[in-house]
Amino acid sequence: MFPKGFKTAGARGGISKKKDKKDTALFYSEFPCAAAGMFTNNLVKAAPVLVSTEHLKKSASDIRAVIANSGCANACTGERGLADARETCSYAAKKLALNQNQVLVASTGVIGQFLPMKAVKSGIDILLGSAGSGPENFDSASRAIMTTDLIPKVSSAQVKISGKTVSIWGCVKGSGMIHPDMSLPHATMLAFILTDAAIDKKTLASALSAAVENSFNCVSVDGDTSTNDSVFALANGASLCSKIKPGGRDFVLFSQALGKVCLELAKLIALDGEGATRLVEIRVMGAGSRADAKKIASTIATSPLVKTAIFGNDANWGRILAAAGRAGVAINPSKVDIRIGGLKVASKGMALNFSEAAAKKILTQKEILITLDLNMGSSFCSYYTCDLSFDYIKINASYRS
Amino acid sequence: MFPKGFKTAGARGGISKKKDKKDTALFYSEFPCAAAGMFTNNLVKAAPVLVSTEHLKKSASDIRAVIANSGCANACTGERGLADARETCSYAAKKLALNQNQVLVASTGVIGQFLPMKAVKSGIDILLGSAGSGPENFDSASRAIMTTDLIPKVSSAQVKISGKTVSIWGCVKGSGMIHPDMSLPHATMLAFILTDAAIDKKTLASALSAAVENSFNCVSVDGDTSTNDSVFALANGASLCSKIKPGGRDFVLFSQALGKVCLELAKLIALDGEGATRLVEIRVMGAGSRADAKKIASTIATSPLVKTAIFGNDANWGRILAAAGRAGVAINPSKVDIRIGGLKVASKGMALNFSEAAAKKILTQKEILITLDLNMGSSFCSYYTCDLSFDYIKINASYRS
Repeated sequence: MFPKGFKTAGARGGISKKKDKKDTALFYSEFPCAAAGMFTNNLVKAAPVLVSTEHLKKSASDIRAVIANSGCANACTGERGLADARETCSYAAKKLALNQNQVLVASTGVIGQFLPMKAVKSGIDILLGSAGSGPENFDSASRAIMTTDLIPKVSSAQVKISGKTVSIWGCVKGSGMIHPDMSLPHATMLAFILTDAAIDKKTLASALSAAVENSFNCVSVDGDTSTNDSVFALANGASLCSKIKPGGRDFVLFSQALGKVCLELAKLIALDGEGATRLVEIRVMGAGSRADAKKIASTIATSPLVKTAIFGNDANWGRILAAAGRAGVAINPSKVDIRIGGLKVASKGMALNFSEAAAKKILTQKEILITLDLNMGSSFCSYYTCDLSFDYIKINASYRS
Repeated sequence: MFPKGFKTAGARGGISKKKDKKDTALFYSEFPCAAAGMFTNNLVKAAPVLVSTEHLKKSASDIRAVIANSGCANACTGERGLADARETCSYAAKKLALNQNQVLVASTGVIGQFLPMKAVKSGIDILLGSAGSGPENFDSASRAIMTTDLIPKVSSAQVKISGKTVSIWGCVKGSGMIHPDMSLPHATMLAFILTDAAIDKKTLASALSAAVENSFNCVSVDGDTSTNDSVFALANGASLCSKIKPGGRDFVLFSQALGKVCLELAKLIALDGEGATRLVEIRVMGAGSRADAKKIASTIATSPLVKTAIFGNDANWGRILAAAGRAGVAINPSKVDIRIGGLKVASKGMALNFSEAAAKKILTQKEILITLDLNMGSSFCSYYTCDLSFDYIKINASYRS
C-alpha cells in the first residue's frame, strides 16, 4: 500500500541530453512532514546538497516537497549554482503555495555544468500537472532520477503501529560514482523515502541514520564518493498511527522496516552498478569492532583485482586476503578463514585444497557471498559491491561526452 | 657502464606456467655488499619478504646475492613457505660458498601456492652456470622477473665521486597489484638496484628510503598493495671511490642519481601498467604539507572514474575534483585550479570555458600531466599512474586460471 497523503511524478523537462529521457521528479506531501536528510561527506558538495541542508535546518518539521533532477549535478557551479538550486525550490514553492524552505532539492548528472533553468521549470510545470498517488507515479519518479542506471529501484515495507498500517516506500538511483559516505545534516546516489508514519524529525533522523549506516554507507560500485549523494526521508503522519517515540517497541518496528527498505535499495544499487554482472556481499566476521570489519570489507569491496577476479569467475582468494592486509586494521593474517559461498577456500591464511569446479559454480551465480572470519573478536559488517567488467570501462570512458 | 663486480642472469627453472618464460634471476656481487631493502607494509607479508628482512638484519654489510623468481609469490604459504624461502637461500649459498644469511630472496606471482622447489633449484643451477657482467645479462635478469609486464624495465645513472665513475643500475617488474607502500626493514613490484659505490648500509638505506618515497611509493596501477613488494639496493664499492658519507656533497650526488634511477623505473611501471595506454602524472601543488598533497594525488590516481575518463580522452575535471574532495584532507574546493597539460580547465573549483578540442589533443598523448593547485600552501607531490582500459579487465579476469 502506497503511503497515504503523498503524490509523486516523473517528467521530462529537457535537462538530460538523452532523447525522451525523463529528468525531473517530484515527491510531494499533502501534509507537513517531519523530514531527515543525510548528505555526502565529500568536501566538494553540490549546490543542492548545501541548499537542502539549509532548508532542513529551518523547516525539518514542516517539509512538503522534494524536486529532483537527473542530467546535471549542479556541482562545482559556485554562487550561480546555489542561486539555481534556490530558484528551483522557490519556483516549485510558489506554484504549490509553499514557503521555499519547505521544498528540498537534489541533482545528479555531470559535474561542472550549470542547471538549464528553463528546462528545470518546464519540468516542474509538467510534474505539478501530472502528480498522483500510487505505485505507477512513484515508478515514474524513480525512472526520472536514473542516469546510467539500467533498472528503476524501488522497495517498500509495511508495519503495524498502534493498530494502523504504516507504509514505507523508497526509491533510489545510483550506478556509478558509488561509494556513499553520508552523515546526518550533511551521496551520486539519491534516495527518497516516503512514509505515512507519525514521527518527529529527531526520531526520524535517528532511525534513518542507523538504517543508512547499514545499507547505503555499506555499498560501493567504484569507490568514488560523489559530491551529490543524498537520502531524504519524509514522514507525514497520514497513517494516523500514534506518534513513534524513540526507544519503544514501535520505534524498533519502524526502524526494522526502514532498515529493510534501505538495505534492499542499497543491494539494488550494487546489482545495477555500472557494468555489474554480479551482486557481491563481503561479510567480515570475528573482528574487534564493527568499524574494523567495515574498513576491511570496504577495502576488499573496492579492490579492482578482487572485482575483476569475480567477473572472471576466478576463486582468487589471495587477492582477497591481500586487500584485507592493506586495509589499515591490525589483523593476524595467519588466523583468517575465507569462504566463497559455503565453500571454505582458505584456512588460517593458507590455501585449502578446495574444488575449483565447485568454486566456479558458486562464482557464476548472480549473487555471491564472500566471508572472511578474522577470528579475533565478535564484531562484523556486510558490505555490498559488484564485479568490475568491460562495460564499466565502456560506460565511463564516454560518459560526459 | 655496468657496475663493476656484479654478475647477473635470468633463466627458466620451470616455475612459471607460461611456456619458455624465464622465471628465476640472480643478482650476484664478487665482493661483500652494503645492502638495504624496503618491503611492503601490507600486513600479509610473503615468506620471501620475511626471510629477506631476517637476513638483512643479520648481514646487511655483507650481502652477496639475491635470488628472485616469478610465477609464484610464495605468499599465504605459512611455515612451509618460510622453509622454502630459506631453502632457496641456502641452496644458492652452498653453491656459491656463502653463508645463507648473505643471500636475499624475492618472489612474485600467484598468491597461495607453494614454491615448486625442484624448479627453483634447477633455475639456480642454470643461473650459476650462465651469470655474467654487463647489460645483456642484466636485461636477461630483468626479463626473468616479469609477470604480466609487457616490457623489461631497466634504468641507470652514473655519477663522479672522488674522481671515480660510480654506476647505478636498476631493474623493476610490476604491472598489476601496484600501489607500493614500503618502508625500511620491511610491490608486487620487485626492484633490484646494483651499484659499485662505496657506502655503508645505513647511509645506503637513508638514500634508498628518500628515493623510494618519491618514486615507487608514488606510483599506482590499481590501488592494490601487494604482499611481496620489495626493493633491494646492493653497493659493493668496486668503483674504488672514497666512501660516501651521509650529508656531504658525494651523498647528494649519489642520492640524486639513485633518485633518478628509481623515478625512471617507477614511471616505467605506470607506463607498463596492466592494460595501460597512457602514463599519467598527477601533480598536487599548493598543499599545506607533502603528506596532504600525496594523499590527494594518490586518491585521484586510484579513482576508477578519473582513470576511465583518461582512457576515453575525456577532460572530465569534475571527477578529478570530486576525488580530491573525498581524500580526507581539509581542502577548500572553491580555491582549487585544475590544469590538463598546459590547459586550465577549472579555476576556483568551477568550470572554465576551455576548448574541448585542445583538451582532447592533450589527452591523446602518451604522457599526460594533470595539475591541481590547492592554493593553500607551498607543498607538493607528484604521483604516477595509468589509465584504466578494457585490457586491465581482460588481464585480471583470467590471471590465476
